[in-house]
Amino acid sequence: MREVAIIGIGMIRFGELWEKSLRDMCVEASLNCFKDAGTDRVDSITVGCMSSGLFTGQEHLSSLVPDYLGKINTPASRVESACASGGLAVRTAFLEVASGISDYALAVGVEKMTDVSVNEATYALATASDRDYEAFHGITFPGLYAMLAKAHMDRYGTTREQLAEVAVKNHANGVLNPYAQFPFPVTRETVMNSTMIADPLRLLDCSPITDGAAAVLLTTETEAKRLKKNPVVGITGIGMGTDTIALSQRKDILRLDAIDHAVRRALKMAGKKIGDIDFAEVHDCFTIAEILVVETMGIVDQGKGGPATIDGLTALTGKFPVNPSGGLKAKGHPVGASGVAQICEAVEQLRGNAGKRQIDNARSGITQNMGGSGGSCVCHVLEVK
Amino acid sequence: MREVAIIGIGMIRFGELWEKSLRDMCVEASLNCFKDAGTDRVDSITVGCMSSGLFTGQEHLSSLVPDYLGKINTPASRVESACASGGLAVRTAFLEVASGISDYALAVGVEKMTDVSVNEATYALATASDRDYEAFHGITFPGLYAMLAKAHMDRYGTTREQLAEVAVKNHANGVLNPYAQFPFPVTRETVMNSTMIADPLRLLDCSPITDGAAAVLLTTETEAKRLKKNPVVGITGIGMGTDTIALSQRKDILRLDAIDHAVRRALKMAGKKIGDIDFAEVHDCFTIAEILVVETMGIVDQGKGGPATIDGLTALTGKFPVNPSGGLKAKGHPVGASGVAQICEAVEQLRGNAGKRQIDNARSGITQNMGGSGGSCVCHVLEVK
Repeated sequence: MREVAIIGIGMIRFGELWEKSLRDMCVEASLNCFKDAGTDRVDSITVGCMSSGLFTGQEHLSSLVPDYLGKINTPASRVESACASGGLAVRTAFLEVASGISDYALAVGVEKMTDVSVNEATYALATASDRDYEAFHGITFPGLYAMLAKAHMDRYGTTREQLAEVAVKNHANGVLNPYAQFPFPVTRETVMNSTMIADPLRLLDCSPITDGAAAVLLTTETEAKRLKKNPVVGITGIGMGTDTIALSQRKDILRLDAIDHAVRRALKMAGKKIGDIDFAEVHDCFTIAEILVVETMGIVDQGKGGPATIDGLTALTGKFPVNPSGGLKAKGHPVGASGVAQICEAVEQLRGNAGKRQIDNARSGITQNMGGSGGSCVCHVLEVK
Repeated sequence: MREVAIIGIGMIRFGELWEKSLRDMCVEASLNCFKDAGTDRVDSITVGCMSSGLFTGQEHLSSLVPDYLGKINTPASRVESACASGGLAVRTAFLEVASGISDYALAVGVEKMTDVSVNEATYALATASDRDYEAFHGITFPGLYAMLAKAHMDRYGTTREQLAEVAVKNHANGVLNPYAQFPFPVTRETVMNSTMIADPLRLLDCSPITDGAAAVLLTTETEAKRLKKNPVVGITGIGMGTDTIALSQRKDILRLDAIDHAVRRALKMAGKKIGDIDFAEVHDCFTIAEILVVETMGIVDQGKGGPATIDGLTALTGKFPVNPSGGLKAKGHPVGASGVAQICEAVEQLRGNAGKRQIDNARSGITQNMGGSGGSCVCHVLEVK
């Protein structure tokens, strides 16, 4: 298997981008990526997108994206794993390069979510749950994560303040991110007094509905060194895991097995333990999600995610920074783009280019991107080579 | 890059399967595949599906399929390239094995198309065209392919009888296929007197709306030999190509560049010329499509697809049999499954297990699966090793 490195990253500012279509966003992020890489060579393109069919009436992005990017004839795929579609796109591009089929592989994540009504968006997102046994009966994702929050509060004594602090921390980071949809600070009181969505989750516990795209260009480590990239950022571990699609089918709803498997696989491939890693970008689609994920990843002990957040362990200046980008919460969550944007942030950090949100001496990072209520998960370990 | 072989194939009979859900069909085809392989070991699963979101309100098949197959925790992807989603799933599973990430990779193609109205199905299929510049203005696929047929008739003198003969040939093959949706013979007169859909294409020029699934299990060639598979069927070439998504943007609408690139790439990788290949399974979504494809693949000269069909060149007993399975036309076209079903047929032929539709001395075959009006294409070369 060939060693794989990231030589280009491209973001656009996330938001409610009424003036930009899905194809515009893919092109803009990809061109930013080519500019960053110093080359527009691509042997294959992988587009990560959850549901362009339901959100925009457009499937077949494997043809649309190379077409509008001026890369007609390039082999291209679209991949989907609900909100983990972006991470899956990077994993697929990794396989292109690792196998030797492609020397240069572009991964583009995208979602255009604001051209439909909130009801239609909620329906589209609910297709990531079990259609027959969850969505059909009316439950949507805020409801599913609210059940997780209630169970966590009941078993571990997690408090409303602790949930709110996840949002406070991520918004504090988001203020420093020029690509963030909501780069403003929030207080615990603001979060706890925001509109109730699904008890105990309030508006500011939830990641937003967002338009956005992000892109990364992969090649071999050898080629990255030949191009004199400094530093060379390698993908040293990839991991994917799955779980029952319906929350009700799990032995313990607070055990996120897909995340556990994905993280273990990625760390094992990289030959690392979680304690060897300097920071993480994780899937904080709801405040409770970040707490569950940092526990499952072993960043903190089971049940200690809430207190650790209050203690500042996962803050930008803490012992293990989590979501330096502002996370899905403050940066926005264009579902197919989020997993790719996590990789962009990790590369910025490892290059030492993250400006005011730079983590000191960041040499390795892990990204964790999940689909649905944890039915699928994709992780990557990135290192300065 | 590791050499890849196919050790299991699984089909279900295609049709209007009101008693089977999307998940049922995936499980049934996969279990048939495991039985055929003599093992149910899988290190990764790739699901090819065009639009389960629009057809069934269910995305996230990457979680659903391993869950219902009893393979929870297995890394899984869903891939989409419109009607080439099945071929893309096999290509992605190939990358899993070739790269060394997976030793055993399952590819499952599926589409559940008959739980929605014909209008809804037509809308869902039209998302494979350019939403902004084609579908929005009301054109659907029969209309796009009708334009191709008119242009071909005008430039090359292709006749109504020649188009009809494609359907006659493929139905004659489909009669011999126990998995075919429409295993009955048709005459030229029946085709030419069937209901007009989009001039000059009539009902029996069109592939049907179908429910179905198909699966293949891949491993390394070394492992296939260790398991004493006889014969070992290898995938010796993979090729993908793309083109403008909108027909109107091509320099020449009768040049299918995505197909040209995909076929060349697959043959080059296999070290073969088209004349070295014994048979083809091609994407006959409409009768005109088969004519265009056999010309682009170099099976016949440009403009000669119609006369060659009448002359029997592509018949089961002809010099270069095309669509021994009955093709999409007679076997049915569950869009995400078709590309995988093509591989199943090719393996049956190469094993010498195709019964009454067996091609004599079949040692190599090529599959060609395309998306939209040729916006994307995936080809595979299969050989007895």
